[in-house]
Amino acid sequence: MQKEIRIGLLGLGTVGSGVVRIISNHQEELYKQTGLHIHIDKILVRDTNKKREVPIAPDRLTVNAEEIIEDPEIDVIVEVMGGIEPAKQYILEALKRKKNVVTANKDLMALHGAEILRIAQQNRCDVFYEASVAGGIPILRALTDSFSSDRITKIMGIVNGTTNYILSKMSQTGADYQETLEEAQKLGYAEANPGSDVEGWDAAYKMSILSTLGFHVAMNLSEVDVKGISDVSIEDIELGKKLGYEMKLLGLAKLDDQKIEVSVQPTLVRNTHPLASVNGVYNAIYIEGEAVGETMFYGPGAGALPTATSVVSDLVSVVRNMKLGVNGQKMVAPYKEKRLKTDDEKYAKYFLRMVVADQRGVLAQMTQLFANNHISLEQVIQQPYNSGNRAEIILVTHEAAKSDLEIALATMKEMDVVSSIESCYPVVEA
Amino acid sequence: MQKEIRIGLLGLGTVGSGVVRIISNHQEELYKQTGLHIHIDKILVRDTNKKREVPIAPDRLTVNAEEIIEDPEIDVIVEVMGGIEPAKQYILEALKRKKNVVTANKDLMALHGAEILRIAQQNRCDVFYEASVAGGIPILRALTDSFSSDRITKIMGIVNGTTNYILSKMSQTGADYQETLEEAQKLGYAEANPGSDVEGWDAAYKMSILSTLGFHVAMNLSEVDVKGISDVSIEDIELGKKLGYEMKLLGLAKLDDQKIEVSVQPTLVRNTHPLASVNGVYNAIYIEGEAVGETMFYGPGAGALPTATSVVSDLVSVVRNMKLGVNGQKMVAPYKEKRLKTDDEKYAKYFLRMVVADQRGVLAQMTQLFANNHISLEQVIQQPYNSGNRAEIILVTHEAAKSDLEIALATMKEMDVVSSIESCYPVVEA
Repeated sequence: MQKEIRIGLLGLGTVGSGVVRIISNHQEELYKQTGLHIHIDKILVRDTNKKREVPIAPDRLTVNAEEIIEDPEIDVIVEVMGGIEPAKQYILEALKRKKNVVTANKDLMALHGAEILRIAQQNRCDVFYEASVAGGIPILRALTDSFSSDRITKIMGIVNGTTNYILSKMSQTGADYQETLEEAQKLGYAEANPGSDVEGWDAAYKMSILSTLGFHVAMNLSEVDVKGISDVSIEDIELGKKLGYEMKLLGLAKLDDQKIEVSVQPTLVRNTHPLASVNGVYNAIYIEGEAVGETMFYGPGAGALPTATSVVSDLVSVVRNMKLGVNGQKMVAPYKEKRLKTDDEKYAKYFLRMVVADQRGVLAQMTQLFANNHISLEQVIQQPYNSGNRAEIILVTHEAAKSDLEIALATMKEMDVVSSIESCYPVVEA
Repeated sequence: MQKEIRIGLLGLGTVGSGVVRIISNHQEELYKQTGLHIHIDKILVRDTNKKREVPIAPDRLTVNAEEIIEDPEIDVIVEVMGGIEPAKQYILEALKRKKNVVTANKDLMALHGAEILRIAQQNRCDVFYEASVAGGIPILRALTDSFSSDRITKIMGIVNGTTNYILSKMSQTGADYQETLEEAQKLGYAEANPGSDVEGWDAAYKMSILSTLGFHVAMNLSEVDVKGISDVSIEDIELGKKLGYEMKLLGLAKLDDQKIEVSVQPTLVRNTHPLASVNGVYNAIYIEGEAVGETMFYGPGAGALPTATSVVSDLVSVVRNMKLGVNGQKMVAPYKEKRLKTDDEKYAKYFLRMVVADQRGVLAQMTQLFANNHISLEQVIQQPYNSGNRAEIILVTHEAAKSDLEIALATMKEMDVVSSIESCYPVVEA
């Protein structure tokens, strides 16, 4: 067997530069861990003349992907360019040439993971993608290896740093969404075009990957209920706090009675729950297993070096497997039948806030409406609303079916005494 | 290759019963994960007639270890009997007969891990021991696989559930140590003879294992500074809370300038630090790596099923390796030179409380003493003491060398104005 492992790196942005830096700074560790020297042979970039943060010999850069994919000397492809195409085509081409792959590409793995993993297995290659979910937190390995003997029943995650930064900042400062988003953009925690983060799609990709691995089913992104944070008001955050909750963009994947639901939505989390104190750009994933009970994994969700740590640790696993000649042989494809819950099987507690006419009997009318729809109430607060002879009603329900809640909300909207339904969030207790 | 993997189980106590239960309840999962049926063939017990919590055919029980160790049909030994001997002898004998081993035995791995792993490697066998540290938290795999590309610089752990239960209960109720210990014993959270837990030894074993894996050195138990919780007073817990700290029995392993210190001691942890809110019998391990930054792993530290989950997940790894014929080939033995810090290289903040004569100039004398010993103070509180014309002085220092602190303490003890030094704890900030 060779003495050196040659890597082809696709992409030299933030994560790619981190990978270069770790591989060059940690040569001793990598050699001791694998018994082989790991060497970055060629790097695909868009512009070979661009000034780079990391020192790289110019002859290692190329704009031509074929030079890397088709090079028989290259053993492993590390894909950190992001996006679906051409990343997907490069990866499939590399696998067909028996090159192992490490990728940080969550969009690609969420949308085309099943196909990529199947082709990897056919070619006896590894495809590892730890860095695609929650940057430096080794959550995929926990699901595939550490809990391999257990039955996972729930995965709850704060898996998007941008939205967690915005929501925890709003909670701390009392500033509103727009102002906080702009500050996050200035600080580089939110992108100029923040849609994929704030609308919940980034988190949905990650929850789709996590639930596929945790529940052994092939989840599709379209099966994730997604709601972003752009409508979250500072009023709701502060009302939530008074009631003992923190607002989080929470990914939830639940298995009850062999049926699954997966969602990403702004959620009020009881402040004694371990997830409630995860602030700023940190991520955390809370897992419940039948045997293990409650566990939580906390760490940096993004950033060049944390994400690159996951990439290079995957690379170490690939190289160890290469030495033993066992690449692509430990993969467990989804083997369970996927049964999704219907809305009448999805149960949650809810927080609701509405503005109503301040007249006798309205509260009774509202509570009756909930009772009629099989929803019982845990807390009811009525308080004066700041304008126009109206009152504000805040409700926290007991566990209720989503279908019942939706009927109640639709009925309320039609009622003359109801001026507006301001907000509706699921509630998670500790 | 065979269709079935035969297990010999040594011990059928709490964890052993959990292993039997998971293997029998999760046959489908185990088969899907490994492609093989996993079957417990024989179980070593002390008394074959004892009534058991789990249903087991009596002919599978034996009091004779040789029947298991020497049985050529048995592929894997699962050791959950605990203690050093005869567990060690059984494991070594099994390895020499090319049987793979999964163990939950922290004492054994902390004291004789190096020898056992060396013999395992000679015989191309796996020895996995995830369950030996922090029950259901997959922390060993995180250190060996997930952070394999990083350089770990700090490991802080709440790794003993009994002491964490006692300290968090004291903090919540204001009851004293003795009363809380007795309650914990009644509830089964502390043993009748709680020495190994409350004196910090159980945690020291675990920190020795964690620092061996994290720093790639062969740590000895005797190199861990250990102090238990039996002297922790409710006064200090409450004073700490007022200053914004929670008292925890904290395992600390730190690498600075290639030099190591490992300790287990009651420590005041800033209440915004993620470890401060780990309460009750839960465990958590906080890890800092040069590249990954801060991460934390939280979960149940003990209990039949959580611990058994780790055991059976290790078993899955063994079986996957057996299928591929690669047992015992991924182990990375400690490869770094071990250099331990001397006391003048160990830096920490400290909390001190002492009772002094209530007379003019005493505070000045004390603060001068610290200054003379290169210790600067962050906070100084003087308050009346409840008896005998004395005052209580509470100090929080800036980072100071342990050697300087010890000289200061020794000098203080000799001073006429000092009635007693009530307490001295390291302080960890967020």
